[in-house]
Amino acid sequence: MIRTHTAGSLRAEHAGQSVTLAGWVARRRDHGGVTFIDLRDASGIVQIVFRDEAQAHALRNEYCVKVTGTVGTRPEGNENPELPTGAIEVTVTDLTVLSEAAPLPFPIDEHVTVGEEARLRHRYLDLRRANQAKAIRLRSRANAIAREVLGARDFLEIETPTLTRSTPEGARDFLVPVRLQPGAWYALPQSPQLFKQLLMVAGMERYYQIARCYRDEDFRADRQPEFTQLDIEMSFVTQDDVIELGEEIVGSLWRELAGYEIPTPIPRITYHDAMNRYGSDKPDLRYQVELTELTGYFEGTEFRVFQAEYTGAVVMPGGASQTRKELDGWQDWAKARGARGLAYVVLDAETGEARGPVAKNLSEAHLAGLADAVGAKPGDAVFFAAGTRRHAQELLGAARIEIAKRAGLVDESAWAFCWVVDAPMFEPVEVDGVAENAWTAVHHPFTSPNEDWIDNFETAPDKALAYAYDIVCNGNEIGGGSIRIHRGDVQKRVFTLLGITDEEAKDKFGFLLDAFAYGPPPHGGIALGWDRVCMLLAGVDSIRDVIAFPKSGGGFDPLTGAPTPITAQQRLEAGVDGKPKAPGEDAAKAKVAAK
Amino acid sequence: MIRTHTAGSLRAEHAGQSVTLAGWVARRRDHGGVTFIDLRDASGIVQIVFRDEAQAHALRNEYCVKVTGTVGTRPEGNENPELPTGAIEVTVTDLTVLSEAAPLPFPIDEHVTVGEEARLRHRYLDLRRANQAKAIRLRSRANAIAREVLGARDFLEIETPTLTRSTPEGARDFLVPVRLQPGAWYALPQSPQLFKQLLMVAGMERYYQIARCYRDEDFRADRQPEFTQLDIEMSFVTQDDVIELGEEIVGSLWRELAGYEIPTPIPRITYHDAMNRYGSDKPDLRYQVELTELTGYFEGTEFRVFQAEYTGAVVMPGGASQTRKELDGWQDWAKARGARGLAYVVLDAETGEARGPVAKNLSEAHLAGLADAVGAKPGDAVFFAAGTRRHAQELLGAARIEIAKRAGLVDESAWAFCWVVDAPMFEPVEVDGVAENAWTAVHHPFTSPNEDWIDNFETAPDKALAYAYDIVCNGNEIGGGSIRIHRGDVQKRVFTLLGITDEEAKDKFGFLLDAFAYGPPPHGGIALGWDRVCMLLAGVDSIRDVIAFPKSGGGFDPLTGAPTPITAQQRLEAGVDGKPKAPGEDAAKAKVAAK
Repeated sequence: MIRTHTAGSLRAEHAGQSVTLAGWVARRRDHGGVTFIDLRDASGIVQIVFRDEAQAHALRNEYCVKVTGTVGTRPEGNENPELPTGAIEVTVTDLTVLSEAAPLPFPIDEHVTVGEEARLRHRYLDLRRANQAKAIRLRSRANAIAREVLGARDFLEIETPTLTRSTPEGARDFLVPVRLQPGAWYALPQSPQLFKQLLMVAGMERYYQIARCYRDEDFRADRQPEFTQLDIEMSFVTQDDVIELGEEIVGSLWRELAGYEIPTPIPRITYHDAMNRYGSDKPDLRYQVELTELTGYFEGTEFRVFQAEYTGAVVMPGGASQTRKELDGWQDWAKARGARGLAYVVLDAETGEARGPVAKNLSEAHLAGLADAVGAKPGDAVFFAAGTRRHAQELLGAARIEIAKRAGLVDESAWAFCWVVDAPMFEPVEVDGVAENAWTAVHHPFTSPNEDWIDNFETAPDKALAYAYDIVCNGNEIGGGSIRIHRGDVQKRVFTLLGITDEEAKDKFGFLLDAFAYGPPPHGGIALGWDRVCMLLAGVDSIRDVIAFPKSGGGFDPLTGAPTPITAQQRLEAGVDGKPKAPGEDAAKAKVAAK
Repeated sequence: MIRTHTAGSLRAEHAGQSVTLAGWVARRRDHGGVTFIDLRDASGIVQIVFRDEAQAHALRNEYCVKVTGTVGTRPEGNENPELPTGAIEVTVTDLTVLSEAAPLPFPIDEHVTVGEEARLRHRYLDLRRANQAKAIRLRSRANAIAREVLGARDFLEIETPTLTRSTPEGARDFLVPVRLQPGAWYALPQSPQLFKQLLMVAGMERYYQIARCYRDEDFRADRQPEFTQLDIEMSFVTQDDVIELGEEIVGSLWRELAGYEIPTPIPRITYHDAMNRYGSDKPDLRYQVELTELTGYFEGTEFRVFQAEYTGAVVMPGGASQTRKELDGWQDWAKARGARGLAYVVLDAETGEARGPVAKNLSEAHLAGLADAVGAKPGDAVFFAAGTRRHAQELLGAARIEIAKRAGLVDESAWAFCWVVDAPMFEPVEVDGVAENAWTAVHHPFTSPNEDWIDNFETAPDKALAYAYDIVCNGNEIGGGSIRIHRGDVQKRVFTLLGITDEEAKDKFGFLLDAFAYGPPPHGGIALGWDRVCMLLAGVDSIRDVIAFPKSGGGFDPLTGAPTPITAQQRLEAGVDGKPKAPGEDAAKAKVAAK
């Protein structure tokens, strides 16, 4: 090492020692012939002092320097108790400029004024900012903590392929042309799902991987074309085993990185309860607002809107004090979500009388009992939604989140975890919003029905429940998984219900089904969205803050300029325009090549 | 868990206990109304006993079963001391078939008779074989051991992008079309090299990653299109620091996984010494055969072949006893390597007289002194090569390896490590085997000249040495790295020597050079070829044995059938045939999208 100590490690006990340090010029103060510089390295900051002004003259911000000097305690009154090294300073005798820095595009400071695009283009400077560096360090620790838990339980870390097979329906796979087989393509995996199940068939029993996954999606604000999940699979387990493991991992992470002891067991709520009570399959439980179903309450109402499959409400505490403009704002909010509007009544703060545009459509009896029915007090507002159960509940669930925001109900320092269990197996195929007499799998078609439904899911596909579970933190789904089907007869029945013929099944999932012919064990697993987990632990707003080199909108990388056009030569070499061979021909050729 | 114990954990002390086990039917013996089955799970094997023959009747090999029974000590004389569970057996009371197995394509046995293609197609069965599973387990341990060393030294595990920018000269990058920007492509990285250097500029100081890398090469026997390296980079270090870290990692791996204590420091040999003494930059030091240079010795010879830039020899101990056919075989061997042949003399076992086709071309004096000059004894053979120093030495180096094989000089149980240091910076550009007056970088152009050459490499580019080092184990290069250039002036001089203009440099390495404008620290690193390291530790012959799902020849995956043709719809959606936008247009658009 070209230094003897790290900057951040120096303390009063080093006083009198000669040290060599290396790092960056962070801040500079000239003061009566003496120059004080904050020298920064990965360990922290220390004040270095140039008694000879001329020596430090040429130093500018972010120069990389090596200095040799003597550690001394600071003059009394000049200590900085905010800084771990604040009791001392290093008086420089020798200075070497290791490299110079051009004028910076933005200061290395917590308070940046430039946009994210500029930050990402100069990410190597952005990461010199303390909070950004801290998030990357936290992520490294998170990996280590998860691996510790998994290693202690005899999990094997196994890498699965990332150049793999495109599935016919996988139009959103990233594709990779193969130079040696023009016209043939690999696909980048959306997850290691199929491979981890194959590893269970292989008898590996306990697998994990911090796995890179790829999804060629329309990039929403918080999505990346490549992302990372902590991917886990276990054999001979029940749902409770996977959930218990998940709780130990999450528990260790929050204990060590957020200083928070998650109360265990983490509460479990069924999918249907979550929808009924919170209008969401990832409810934010930091606030207690709940939905109330009013379908029965409004039975016989003459108000057409409420003559629906489902009518429900959510209460905004103190919402009656909103201005007309604020109440109108809710209509815009609802319309932006694709709803027609958001019916509401406000309860007079004095009298409790129900007022507002909907009130006049409701009978006196319905109005009189409403506050009790929804648990509202005078001064509250009550928002309604009616329609299909699912769409109405989702609207109320979104309103619930918005209410919490607008009414300041969110304790930003709180952590609220839950498991959402008993997810439905199937949902009706909708064409233009109308259910067809056909079913699609809510998860992948290898998800196992639970024990109540495994023998009879065909009798009521809309009610059948799966051994599928999601873990939710503060309204974010941070992970999910399921117990998989390992019995051939059950798998066949699921395919039949989904209308997947043997031939289609073979085409889509052939190699997994082949494997399942050879004694597959009962197995299940979970995947944690690692970018999001780290984002929550780091207390940052975007997953981009916990990714060393993230893409910005549209999958563009402001740093490297990727993606780019390719040259004609590259296109030719890559085999992009090769004519695919007849089916089987590739395999036959490859067989020869493998010999 | 659906079992109470793992099969391999049962011992005599469990006798009398009721246990529930789950695993696979491995071997079956019917014996007088009683059926004995080896039940296998990931932990090992235990013998289970069915007293009721009928109960076990339907069980076939590799059925996955759950059994409940009582542990008992085996009758005296029936213990199996080879098996950790050999003192006991489990008498089954309850049996559940969890899943059945079709007839197997090959037995789950160490001695497979089928080819690798069949094994890989059914890799989930292949991995049930003990040795295959062991190799995968070892790899997981290797990861943990490396992470332990690095974690204890405050290295950060940081993920770098795998969807990144194609470099203009990188015709061998795998390319990925981008659906949202038709005509634009990502490239999969050949290594995280540029990103790890950016992380050093970012001040992260100590980075590592077990990184997936991609190279669209002609697949040689032991290459995979995706491979893994343990990738490391450090700031403020010298070559010795990186080497010391490398030794601790490799030392820990071999200590814990091979039971071998590597003597440290691992010997260092310069690149030129390695070439002169072993004819290889990755010498196998398990045997002591060395090359001897004879250029001076043969000065003035009339034998035209030996009037070369370089003449050298390598001795085959006992090689004089080879048959004429064996000696002719060496000529074929040399021709297969592209040489014209391999000159040799044999030294008569009795008289020491030099005989053979070359002998008659040499003077008596040259013949008389030869044995002493090359250190040969009567009964040895001496092989010669002459030509350019490099080509002749490489031929002798290959002959040296072949000699060791044919003469049985290789101690297969030995481990021999060395560092090859002081690699050359530059080599002449050859066109049709003739050196042009131009230079190319032996490593990447960011490799630093060593302190002897940093100020004057232009004076003798062919002699200039780099801070570049490889670590070699038993003749395999298992890792390599270098100290990088961090000084702008040095970088500019290297580019000038290589004939790279400012504009070209900007085009090829723009974002790295941009970063280097902002105080880059001195830094360097190393990458270990993780597949090969694990292969050596596992004692297997192919890297495919330490990869869960490897590709076979030509990048074909016999398991999934990848790569495959894609549908017209996929091609359309993927944007393969999109027209690239004008330069800048993408960036401008992305900027808007990022807002």
